Amino acid sequence: MAAASNFYSIVAGVGAGTGRSVALKFAKAYPVALLARNPANYESIVKEINAAGGQAIGISTDVSSESSVKNAFTEIQKEFKGKKLAAAIFNVGGRFVRKPFLELTLEEYEAGYEANGKGFFLFAQATLPGLLESVPDSPHPPSLIITGATASLRGSATMSSFASGKFALRATGQSLAREFGPKGVHVAHAIIDGVIDIPRTRDWPVNGGVEDGKISSDAIADSYWYLHTQPRSHFTQELDVRPYVEKF
Amino acid sequence: MAAASNFYSIVAGVGAGTGRSVALKFAKAYPVALLARNPANYESIVKEINAAGGQAIGISTDVSSESSVKNAFTEIQKEFKGKKLAAAIFNVGGRFVRKPFLELTLEEYEAGYEANGKGFFLFAQATLPGLLESVPDSPHPPSLIITGATASLRGSATMSSFASGKFALRATGQSLAREFGPKGVHVAHAIIDGVIDIPRTRDWPVNGGVEDGKISSDAIADSYWYLHTQPRSHFTQELDVRPYVEKF
Amino acid sequence: MAAASNFYSIVAGVGAGTGRSVALKFAKAYPVALLARNPANYESIVKEINAAGGQAIGISTDVSSESSVKNAFTEIQKEFKGKKLAAAIFNVGGRFVRKPFLELTLEEYEAGYEANGKGFFLFAQATLPGLLESVPDSPHPPSLIITGATASLRGSATMSSFASGKFALRATGQSLAREFGPKGVHVAHAIIDGVIDIPRTRDWPVNGGVEDGKISSDAIADSYWYLHTQPRSHFTQELDVRPYVEKF
Amino acid sequence: MAAASNFYSIVAGVGAGTGRSVALKFAKAYPVALLARNPANYESIVKEINAAGGQAIGISTDVSSESSVKNAFTEIQKEFKGKKLAAAIFNVGGRFVRKPFLELTLEEYEAGYEANGKGFFLFAQATLPGLLESVPDSPHPPSLIITGATASLRGSATMSSFASGKFALRATGQSLAREFGPKGVHVAHAIIDGVIDIPRTRDWPVNGGVEDGKISSDAIADSYWYLHTQPRSHFTQELDVRPYVEKF
Repeated sequence: MAAASNFYSIVAGVGAGTGRSVALKFAKAYPVALLARNPANYESIVKEINAAGGQAIGISTDVSSESSVKNAFTEIQKEFKGKKLAAAIFNVGGRFVRKPFLELTLEEYEAGYEANGKGFFLFAQATLPGLLESVPDSPHPPSLIITGATASLRGSATMSSFASGKFALRATGQSLAREFGPKGVHVAHAIIDGVIDIPRTRDWPVNGGVEDGKISSDAIADSYWYLHTQPRSHFTQELDVRPYVEKF
Repeated sequence: MAAASNFYSIVAGVGAGTGRSVALKFAKAYPVALLARNPANYESIVKEINAAGGQAIGISTDVSSESSVKNAFTEIQKEFKGKKLAAAIFNVGGRFVRKPFLELTLEEYEAGYEANGKGFFLFAQATLPGLLESVPDSPHPPSLIITGATASLRGSATMSSFASGKFALRATGQSLAREFGPKGVHVAHAIIDGVIDIPRTRDWPVNGGVEDGKISSDAIADSYWYLHTQPRSHFTQELDVRPYVEKF
Repeated sequence: MAAASNFYSIVAGVGAGTGRSVALKFAKAYPVALLARNPANYESIVKEINAAGGQAIGISTDVSSESSVKNAFTEIQKEFKGKKLAAAIFNVGGRFVRKPFLELTLEEYEAGYEANGKGFFLFAQATLPGLLESVPDSPHPPSLIITGATASLRGSATMSSFASGKFALRATGQSLAREFGPKGVHVAHAIIDGVIDIPRTRDWPVNGGVEDGKISSDAIADSYWYLHTQPRSHFTQELDVRPYVEKF
Repeated sequence: MAAASNFYSIVAGVGAGTGRSVALKFAKAYPVALLARNPANYESIVKEINAAGGQAIGISTDVSSESSVKNAFTEIQKEFKGKKLAAAIFNVGGRFVRKPFLELTLEEYEAGYEANGKGFFLFAQATLPGLLESVPDSPHPPSLIITGATASLRGSATMSSFASGKFALRATGQSLAREFGPKGVHVAHAIIDGVIDIPRTRDWPVNGGVEDGKISSDAIADSYWYLHTQPRSHFTQELDVRPYVEKF
């Protein structure tokens, strides 16, 4: 794990899959702050990183709450005083609701937007000033990396809650790429098109249960690191990923 | 204007442009309920339709308020008792905020979603049961027609509020098309790519000020009527429209 | 059928389905020239139109042959001397080859492009000068209308021949819309996403064999006529159509 | 440069920019065959690689000629006897023609397709059998990587030749990804959206002439190598790249 660095990173939305892998990956280069509502989602990862000689903190945060986000960033600035922000990863899933449209409550419909619309707005507003500040001297272009999904590109029957949130997230990500790219901040959006291989999905009969039929979260972390290290002459705004056997 | 019909229509988002033209167009076939927050936006249109022998009512409605939508539909059902719903048009613009991202308040960012996400959810939940009921005997497939914009397809610098709302609207529209199309309800989405020719935009120097460089709202109304009258063997889910001189 | 008109129309790719319906539709307003390789594909339609008081001619044409297209347009100009071109519809299917990629011959792969790339190039070059000439006085904006397919938007395993042709067609159509739209010519592209209901497909078990599970070619003709009659302030560049039960 | 490997790679379309950088990058891991019509385009690169301890051959090839491609692959198999194919990169630009549509000759229009449609077909048919053979034991999933452009996604006025070729290329790439992905071959398509920084473009006033306003071809090579090394649980089918200041 990394020795001290003048820069740090933030991962919002940490659990057993992508968030954990991304945290471990970025922790090799930068101290990392992990945000999740439930401390159980980050505690073991924080320990794992610190035990390996890296530096990590975890903060219980509800990204769709203004005050919670504010508190989190106050704490981050205190903990990482003197360091600058190199990378911010938004990997929030939010509550996933799948229901016939006429059975949705308003609150269920809005769950998608709460996390991916409002939550990303708050996260982006909290991280972009720091990313802009790092432009002159960060080792790689300061990066805001966003986790999208199949539902970022198409709505499906019974998926309007999730799709509306992921579409809103993509819209905002594109807007930020066009506004902050020319200022040197790299805003990238990944379409994760498939089931991620985590303990919870281990027994899902995805793609006929073939080997590698689910996405390796470590490979996602590699792709985010690759995005982060792209030079500013060659920014990827969007890429898709899926298992070799996935229908698309 | 139309004599009595056993069916009625609803237009949400009525003002000087598309909403007015659509109301006048659909009023030739069906009584029409016009929804707008500000009664000044529908009063003259209601008069115009009724004076011409059609039937129209206006209801002051905030589509992003559950109770306001509920009240509106209670009133519609009372006014149009015994009639069934043939067409519902969602033409809500919402508050348009254009600002550098870091200057947006949360409330400004959310303005896009309030109208086009939450507002459309409430409108669709209120109209789909009636549209489904009309499937067996309505003169044309019952239709839910949605007004999109350039920002439905791409985010732009300073446009994250509007784009996130219009993306969310499109996501939900696609989800509904896939869920309710097979039940016989036609859900269609129009990308309006250009400035609409209304009194407020008359002096905007759009497309060099050439004749027909702005979109005729009557032509939009014709396109919505065309969509409504498509047979179920031939549903258009999405179409774009723009002036002949518009860059795209 | 139409009395004499000062304008005429052309439909390339005439058979039992879309081409026939489009020819009958446009023949109500304009004399029409029908192009198909095999005269059996247009002879009965020509008779039907002329018997109904319209005016139609058929010309055996291979749109992917320069000399054949040249001959066809020489004959059209002779037959419709003094008239101007109001609408040109490109509805060529071409040879449809569906095979594992490694079993395709070069000639089979190129079949898609021959009809939809090269064929459309020759057709567009032959019709655009006439369409431009009609801009000042044609009853509706002179129109070049193109038949696309699901394969215009996505390649599929075993469909590279057809998809490469339809993608090339769409690319050229977009280029022409951007070049000739500002000059007053309406270039529109329709994505036909489903099986068309013609004698040959009658027994295909499409969409579970439900009523209206295949696309009515008359409805396609209506949509092309609708596109043709759009005013220049409101041009649709692309629309999709599919049966209400089609998965998409 | 690499010591001997049991695998080799092929780069079609080699010149001063992407092709050269990709060749140098892949030559670190595999012997590489460079294809270009003009030997001047590969000779110095072949020397550079061999001088650095790598292994490279160059073959004068016209990818749009069946016999030329056949000869090239016969020679490759002879030169790299006993080795298996790990990666094939299709980076052919072809003749770029930009003209008002009505001034294009058929031959000019077809130039786009010749290189990117027909040329890619011949290249893919020649390389896919070898890539399939390498699936069981290649160090990374055998890869077919394709260079696209802005014109792969949209047609522009005066660009129908190039756009129709690049659309056809993308269609075929998608078809192959869907057919050969499940067999373990990684087919990926890169949208290069910007001007590449090569001697010929050095003085082009792109993006106001700012530093890094053109794409580094070495960064493209890094991205192709990244694509090649993705595990099969996490294949990217498409990604875009552009300079941070590029409008999009």
